[in-house]
Amino acid sequence: MAGGGGTRFWPLSRKTAPKQLLNLSGKEIMVNEAIDRLSPVARDGVFIVTNELQKAKMFALLNGRVEAEHILSEPAARNTSACIGYAAMEILKKYGDGVMVVTPSDAYIKDNLKFAEVLKTAVAAAENTGKLVTIGITPTFPATGYGYIQYAEDGGEAKPVKKFVEKPDEKTAKGYLESGDFVWNSGMFVWKASVILEKFKELLPDVYSCLEEIAASFGSADEKEKIKKIYPSITSVSVDYGIMEKCRDILVVPGEFGWNDVGSWDTFGVLHTADNNGNVQIGDTLAIDTKHTTVFSSGKLVAAVGVGNLIIVETDDAVLVCPKDRAQDVKKIVDELKNRGREELL
Amino acid sequence: MAGGGGTRFWPLSRKTAPKQLLNLSGKEIMVNEAIDRLSPVARDGVFIVTNELQKAKMFALLNGRVEAEHILSEPAARNTSACIGYAAMEILKKYGDGVMVVTPSDAYIKDNLKFAEVLKTAVAAAENTGKLVTIGITPTFPATGYGYIQYAEDGGEAKPVKKFVEKPDEKTAKGYLESGDFVWNSGMFVWKASVILEKFKELLPDVYSCLEEIAASFGSADEKEKIKKIYPSITSVSVDYGIMEKCRDILVVPGEFGWNDVGSWDTFGVLHTADNNGNVQIGDTLAIDTKHTTVFSSGKLVAAVGVGNLIIVETDDAVLVCPKDRAQDVKKIVDELKNRGREELL
Repeated sequence: MAGGGGTRFWPLSRKTAPKQLLNLSGKEIMVNEAIDRLSPVARDGVFIVTNELQKAKMFALLNGRVEAEHILSEPAARNTSACIGYAAMEILKKYGDGVMVVTPSDAYIKDNLKFAEVLKTAVAAAENTGKLVTIGITPTFPATGYGYIQYAEDGGEAKPVKKFVEKPDEKTAKGYLESGDFVWNSGMFVWKASVILEKFKELLPDVYSCLEEIAASFGSADEKEKIKKIYPSITSVSVDYGIMEKCRDILVVPGEFGWNDVGSWDTFGVLHTADNNGNVQIGDTLAIDTKHTTVFSSGKLVAAVGVGNLIIVETDDAVLVCPKDRAQDVKKIVDELKNRGREELL
Repeated sequence: MAGGGGTRFWPLSRKTAPKQLLNLSGKEIMVNEAIDRLSPVARDGVFIVTNELQKAKMFALLNGRVEAEHILSEPAARNTSACIGYAAMEILKKYGDGVMVVTPSDAYIKDNLKFAEVLKTAVAAAENTGKLVTIGITPTFPATGYGYIQYAEDGGEAKPVKKFVEKPDEKTAKGYLESGDFVWNSGMFVWKASVILEKFKELLPDVYSCLEEIAASFGSADEKEKIKKIYPSITSVSVDYGIMEKCRDILVVPGEFGWNDVGSWDTFGVLHTADNNGNVQIGDTLAIDTKHTTVFSSGKLVAAVGVGNLIIVETDDAVLVCPKDRAQDVKKIVDELKNRGREELL
């Protein structure tokens, strides 16, 4: 899933350069890192769901990792259920059936080997049991920004899910952390394409009938036209809300592999090694008497003196200064730029 | 006096663009503002003392305000006494004698009319009494960054100086402020050229003999060569320390005209009108949930969210972020750039 248009890494992220196309780690763009870490299990290839705005640029940046006909393009963003259903239909058509691993393309994973182990466990579980399987992240702090999954301990690697819960308040999150049987909902799923489509049919029948109509046009002359017409009318609902929370008999594989959703600039630091003062400096920078600050330069010298817990980012056409604990509010800047008609900066 | 190479407005100020050549007010470069506000008293013209590095650029920026032969160039910076003595010698040579107003070129004065009144009083006092006259600034807060002058109240506009005192600590400064008979030392002086040179002869005889030797070459073929040879050997001493603090019988004219030495970025705001949040924004900027912050853009959009009491400056080749109360430490950046051999940024 690589269709997001995230604004929270502005001024680095833009409409035509969303987070998944950014090289935040200094190594590779995020979507390529996601593809490469799937390779131990993605035996028959990788599908990408994105949109028309990003498709051409993404294909170029993929550098041969994914064949052109595996890049699906949504005519409109209709949340994760439509995205996943569309891909499942493609898989059914191309392979008859198969286990699919569904993952966002813009999260960071530190330990790719451990991640591959967890994936293999999940793939085997999905294949052998025919159940929906989700990947849970063993929590390391009482996060209030993620949903949680409670599981029953039965000794197996893929454990029965008791329930999905929404983002908790801090007190509740602390309880979850202490209980030991809650994991973060990573938004990564493993299941047979046929199984998830059965669930769509049962729990999201309207979405399913749209998907069926689209799938009927696959390979025909009017495929593109059909998708363009039908897709935007699909109900916009997340797969968590539309399917997972309403299903029984789901399995979760808990994993510890250094996962971070890198949701905004405040977590940018996890992608890099900080210096002795806790600063992460990228490009031509100079930080004096400065602590726990991210200084990112795309060209000019960026100098800071006497600051702490700040984010300072310079790109070709903009500069951002923001405290780490206000990183969510970078969105406010993007909104205001929209208001002011500054399209060139969006 | 316009020879300073101030680094405290980096990245705006550079070796070849020191503070006095910057348009910090958005109206005119500082040296031109200084010249224009002297015009009510500078009957016979203005002399500028600067250096070779700045001379050509300055002459161009003066836009006809000062004739080329009135721009004196120091081969080396030797503090204010050499600078003032050099100019006094030039005045003696060109005009026989005359009252000279000595002023830094890089201070801000809000009320030019009031300033002209004070200058006229000081010029009359210097002319009529033959004494050294200095301009004092009625203090508005217990500043620890300026020297002070204590005067005796005798009912006149030009008052006898009791003593000069160095920069005080905060407690002492509070006492000065409450006493009512202390003013800030503005570094502005008014006296006859012949009178100040007599004081050089008496109190700084070595400096005086160097100046005499230089003056002897004025108009001759080897004038430039002589200055280049002798000037760097002049003892470097401020006129405050070398003359004023050692003299009796000095007059001070206290004045209130909105003076500010604009010593560093933290005082940049006095040159501008802040918005309702106390922010001063210059150029293409955007400040959200931001207070008491200076945002200065030379080109790119500079956006801040959730910050306070910061200085954010963007120029063609550098970005600075610094808390207002650390503005003095901008010098540390310049020093470090020197260490790193980043000549292009100095």
